[in-house]
Amino acid sequence: MQAKERTLSGMRPTGSLHIGHYFGALRNWVAMQETCDCFFFVADWHALTSNYADTAPLPGFVRDMVVDWMSTGLDPEKCSIYRQSDIRETAELHLLLSMITPLGWLERCPTYKEQLQNITDKDLGNYGFLGYPVLMTADIIQHRPHWVPGGQDQLPHLEQAREIVRRFNGMYGVEVFPEPEAKLTPAARCPGLDGRKMSKSYGNGIFLRDTMEELTPKIRGMFTDPARLRKSDPGNPDVCNLFPYHKLLADEETQAEIRAACTSAGMGCVACKKIFLENLQKFLNPIRERREAILAQPGLVDDVLAAGGDKAAASVSETMRLVRAAMHMD
Amino acid sequence: MQAKERTLSGMRPTGSLHIGHYFGALRNWVAMQETCDCFFFVADWHALTSNYADTAPLPGFVRDMVVDWMSTGLDPEKCSIYRQSDIRETAELHLLLSMITPLGWLERCPTYKEQLQNITDKDLGNYGFLGYPVLMTADIIQHRPHWVPGGQDQLPHLEQAREIVRRFNGMYGVEVFPEPEAKLTPAARCPGLDGRKMSKSYGNGIFLRDTMEELTPKIRGMFTDPARLRKSDPGNPDVCNLFPYHKLLADEETQAEIRAACTSAGMGCVACKKIFLENLQKFLNPIRERREAILAQPGLVDDVLAAGGDKAAASVSETMRLVRAAMHMD
Repeated sequence: MQAKERTLSGMRPTGSLHIGHYFGALRNWVAMQETCDCFFFVADWHALTSNYADTAPLPGFVRDMVVDWMSTGLDPEKCSIYRQSDIRETAELHLLLSMITPLGWLERCPTYKEQLQNITDKDLGNYGFLGYPVLMTADIIQHRPHWVPGGQDQLPHLEQAREIVRRFNGMYGVEVFPEPEAKLTPAARCPGLDGRKMSKSYGNGIFLRDTMEELTPKIRGMFTDPARLRKSDPGNPDVCNLFPYHKLLADEETQAEIRAACTSAGMGCVACKKIFLENLQKFLNPIRERREAILAQPGLVDDVLAAGGDKAAASVSETMRLVRAAMHMD
Repeated sequence: MQAKERTLSGMRPTGSLHIGHYFGALRNWVAMQETCDCFFFVADWHALTSNYADTAPLPGFVRDMVVDWMSTGLDPEKCSIYRQSDIRETAELHLLLSMITPLGWLERCPTYKEQLQNITDKDLGNYGFLGYPVLMTADIIQHRPHWVPGGQDQLPHLEQAREIVRRFNGMYGVEVFPEPEAKLTPAARCPGLDGRKMSKSYGNGIFLRDTMEELTPKIRGMFTDPARLRKSDPGNPDVCNLFPYHKLLADEETQAEIRAACTSAGMGCVACKKIFLENLQKFLNPIRERREAILAQPGLVDDVLAAGGDKAAASVSETMRLVRAAMHMD
């Protein structure tokens, strides 16, 4: 029997997940767990790189994230769900990798420079923030995967990880780590209600735990085709902020009908939003039901994290034995 | 019963110890173990900050260091001797502290800048080397000592640790860590054979494991008072490179006799060196005997490190429970 391919992915716990998280990542994770040996981790140490000063919400965010993951279909029987900080050996690997990672690589990291410029309400000038690509590398290579899923925006981090892997293997003369390849996940355009990137801090998100009472006014107020002022004007779905959601939630036939009715001014935006709201409800209902079932089992999240943590710890321990031997630290 | 004060110290394993290590540190450690609850650690992770590219000698250096320590009188029944890398939670604390340590503090660290300038045969431009004061802080504060011993040159590191402690306690609103104070250990002038700082890399050291066959030519060739060309010239012990050793090894009466004989040209340097060699032999003999007894017990070093590691792990685990609780990471 061929062993399943091993892979992993993680998310920072920063609050409730929105449907952008689902269509950008979770949907792919749910598919991956069927065919791969998957590790999914709640990146609480990463949350500290920028939110070190306000950690009180962290325990709630961690639990919410696990509940959201499971409610969208991640099944702890099929994959390992763990909390990053439960695996102490990750910190050891991070420390060891820090010794062989040139400062210049980190200082030139495009996402590092971008965030330093864009995030102005927090002081990011700390040692750990500069090193987050090293921690990310440890997160990945500790499971020795041959590939990891990710979007285009994750490619610089993966390239960094590959460089550190090459340096490690070359320096210690042992192929401890395979160079992880990127497997680009299908990109899904899922803009925020106002057309900007969907983000909790912009207040423009549709959250997996939104009720219909919360959703109805949100959808009613969302942007559509800005050039369509009257119902009798024909609309353009390709510039409309609502149509991408139909692409995600409606079947192809319905999408074609909507496009035809919009471009011929046969249907107005109010009716179009009604279709969206119905489809959204159909999409969110099973997620809500699963969430309620999960929340009805008070110890479940702890049990899932404990079991997933055990599996992750075993995977990492095996790697760390090889790492210490390669570095003469055993 | 009052609990003993807890303190700690460590050394990088870089090869055999010389008598400068003894008079600068070990002599104080041996005294401390009688009255304090002491942790002494072999800083193998610190060795990586500059020697990451050549780790093959490390296992031997670690063992040699433990043997040297015990042969000078450190007694594993009275203190805890452990290997830094055996305590994985130190790496976790290092990672957590990295999140709250401003980059500027590290970039301005005087010993960091000094070493970048002085060490030119190794590439020190790595992330871990910049962060070594963070690792040093973790080493110290993980045992929550109220003071640590050290020389003048260690004061910047301790000040850095105190700043990180203040920031941690202030940010998380809990006095997890006491601010460690410096207890300056008696300075002992112990120059190298050629008058420069005693150092393995200068080839000017008197090593604890030197035999008399190795020592005799070394002592014969060592510098004394450069102005004293003939035995009939009066010498000046205060500029002589040998006299500091008499201060360390000879009793006060003998020191006074030597001073008188030297300044009156009553004794030449050859005779003076003979006294030194005899005193050195008296000093090194018991060390050699203890070393032979230690080496006659093949599993002893492993046992000492295992037992010391257990005690250190218990101390650190207690601290880390407080740290995680303070940061809402438990």
